[in-house]
Amino acid sequence: MAIWLEQAADGFEAQFAAFLTTKREVSEDVNAVVRDIIADVRARGDVALMEYSVRFDGIDFDATPMRVTSEEIDAAIAEVPSEVLGALKVAAVRIESHHRRQLPRDDSYEDELGVVLGSRWTAIEAVGIYVPGGTASYPSSVLMNAIPAKVAGVERVVMVVPAKEGVVNPAVLAAARMAGVEEIYRVGGAQAVAALAYGTETIAPVAKITGPGNAYVAAAKRHVFGTVGIDMIAGPSEVLVIADKDNNPDWIAADLLAQAEHDRGAQSILMTDNPLLAKSVEQAVERQLKTLGRAETAAASWRDFGAIIIVESLEDAIPLANRIAAEHLELAVDDPDALMLGIRNAGAIFIGKHTPEVIGDYVGGSNHVLPTARSARFSSGLSVLDFMKRTSVLKLGAEQLRALGPAAIALANSEGLDAHARSVAIRLNLEG
Amino acid sequence: MAIWLEQAADGFEAQFAAFLTTKREVSEDVNAVVRDIIADVRARGDVALMEYSVRFDGIDFDATPMRVTSEEIDAAIAEVPSEVLGALKVAAVRIESHHRRQLPRDDSYEDELGVVLGSRWTAIEAVGIYVPGGTASYPSSVLMNAIPAKVAGVERVVMVVPAKEGVVNPAVLAAARMAGVEEIYRVGGAQAVAALAYGTETIAPVAKITGPGNAYVAAAKRHVFGTVGIDMIAGPSEVLVIADKDNNPDWIAADLLAQAEHDRGAQSILMTDNPLLAKSVEQAVERQLKTLGRAETAAASWRDFGAIIIVESLEDAIPLANRIAAEHLELAVDDPDALMLGIRNAGAIFIGKHTPEVIGDYVGGSNHVLPTARSARFSSGLSVLDFMKRTSVLKLGAEQLRALGPAAIALANSEGLDAHARSVAIRLNLEG
Repeated sequence: MAIWLEQAADGFEAQFAAFLTTKREVSEDVNAVVRDIIADVRARGDVALMEYSVRFDGIDFDATPMRVTSEEIDAAIAEVPSEVLGALKVAAVRIESHHRRQLPRDDSYEDELGVVLGSRWTAIEAVGIYVPGGTASYPSSVLMNAIPAKVAGVERVVMVVPAKEGVVNPAVLAAARMAGVEEIYRVGGAQAVAALAYGTETIAPVAKITGPGNAYVAAAKRHVFGTVGIDMIAGPSEVLVIADKDNNPDWIAADLLAQAEHDRGAQSILMTDNPLLAKSVEQAVERQLKTLGRAETAAASWRDFGAIIIVESLEDAIPLANRIAAEHLELAVDDPDALMLGIRNAGAIFIGKHTPEVIGDYVGGSNHVLPTARSARFSSGLSVLDFMKRTSVLKLGAEQLRALGPAAIALANSEGLDAHARSVAIRLNLEG
Repeated sequence: MAIWLEQAADGFEAQFAAFLTTKREVSEDVNAVVRDIIADVRARGDVALMEYSVRFDGIDFDATPMRVTSEEIDAAIAEVPSEVLGALKVAAVRIESHHRRQLPRDDSYEDELGVVLGSRWTAIEAVGIYVPGGTASYPSSVLMNAIPAKVAGVERVVMVVPAKEGVVNPAVLAAARMAGVEEIYRVGGAQAVAALAYGTETIAPVAKITGPGNAYVAAAKRHVFGTVGIDMIAGPSEVLVIADKDNNPDWIAADLLAQAEHDRGAQSILMTDNPLLAKSVEQAVERQLKTLGRAETAAASWRDFGAIIIVESLEDAIPLANRIAAEHLELAVDDPDALMLGIRNAGAIFIGKHTPEVIGDYVGGSNHVLPTARSARFSSGLSVLDFMKRTSVLKLGAEQLRALGPAAIALANSEGLDAHARSVAIRLNLEG
């Protein structure tokens, strides 16, 4: 049973504050292991990669090549049901079209002194995408990472994926082909992150690494941050559903369980002003759990981290939702506009009763890589901007330097930086 | 003496590659100390802050309040020479006006199926700015961090600054006032980062921390990343000057020394097709070093990390500059346009012979917080976007769900996520 909090009850604030700080992940301390693996791959390159891949994935690169061949991708596509290929295509087209709108514009202008200022956006040259193995090897995540990189203009998009006994999920390979990724290596774990960051004989280094992974992958990404860029460190998924009384409890229950089935650490929260609806949803969750393939995972998540919060009015939901800062926020209400205005912390908002969050996971067009664990307070979902960088441009002539130089000299002197002051003064013949 | 590399010489590629990977920072392993300090501040709050401040900064909060008072800021401003105040004002106005152009626009549109998609930008609610103490306590950095935050719309901008015996650089306080920052605490080091991330009785927590600091501050920022957002981890500063033959060697030498005086780990590089100019610049550097206040630092930086690279033609400078990915790139050439087109990796570009990099440090208007240590390959200077986050918005009606639902169901089933499939199917009456 999920916890049940009522805003009107005594002690709500303390309970809610405690709820916000609940940890949903066992933080394994894998840093020492990860540090050693990274140092080893840096020092020994492919040889180290081979040894770790035998040990962790049971794959021998003497028998199966590290790089997936183009023929294997062809064969994989032939294996994927056409219905799934068609659905991937629908998703890919919509993701591409939405992300194209995120392409930033360069800026360049001359100010009133005649100084030219600009901002130029360029694509990162090479990016590595980590795709998890096993049950979390999702073709949809391949699209969500690779398509924004391609739209940004990244020339080289590399994929790494751990492959137990050499086998890669065929739908993952199909998604990679669809997104235009052809450089795919059968390596995973911290060793794959190290190879992407530092390069080996087979894998040329990249400038940024994105994509989800287990504790080892996350620690490795943190470790190589600085040498390369990384995206956010993703935690377990979460949804907050704000619902008014006019809802089908079965629909809401299904949405809560769709998060819960991801991971035992996932979190599903219902917030409503109607205790009767809440009760019905709770019963519907129990009923639906019985027929779920991943019932054990979903039940554990709902039991340990699920919550039902009864607010006094729907407006009261706004500040609480901003404190939760959910990765996914559903507004299952008849009049979402008032709520929308007040919400500022959320990875993605799904408006109205016909927009289940699952649409955003696959075919909505927006990105499903979103900030978890309250990080929507300070960060955003993955976008085209994550695969680009901005260079500022400044251009003065002699006249502009005469106008601005004295202020620069005054500040340089006040900061005790003589050479800074001289670099301007010497051009103004104030010092030689 | 800086190293001297010639593209035309044998072994250039190997020498250049080795040069690129030169480490310019001693990486102290301060992680264990930092972890303990953070845990302690989290557990004991203000009491821990007080103890560390006595120990590290010789300041007793029973005698001097932790928070700088408004009267102290008034008094500090009265101490700052009016020339410096005027220069700070010039800088502040220009920084604000440039950064206003970075404000992103929300997007909202209906696609051909009638699905509404959007992106909404909102400001982070609270941000902490770390300002170093001692000689690196720069008022210009206060403006460069605080003004973009204010332009973004951040309501609460907090500053922390270590204050040996309680004293804060008056120009730093003047810059804070000018940028609209009034919440300033006399704390520094890992303990200040911990206080900003987790909060204490006196300091309410923030959602993001920016600003430079020493090895302890950098390690602490890495540590709290996830709980709060952080900006980049800044390394020692660097400049690459690409110069044609028609340059005044003294101007170029002054620019190289302006970087070198920052830090013994700073790096100044001259790239030119003209060995005679290079020789003259080298001599001018030696000459100018004699009259610098920070000659020792600048000489060490130039000796250990400075470089002169002779290229066969100016076009040959482009790929090398992209591999260096300098924080600051000066194009001291008569025809910068051709070079500009080819440059993609640089924090900021300074065009022409009258745009010394120092203008960008203070009064150009663009930000001086820029990616160092080759990270311009994958990251950008500080901007208004660093103080905002984007929420994606999706809205379907019944008709749009009928159109897109089947593809979502197909993908959910192929990923083995029953509840995902059900959350759509149940709304389409495909499952109950």
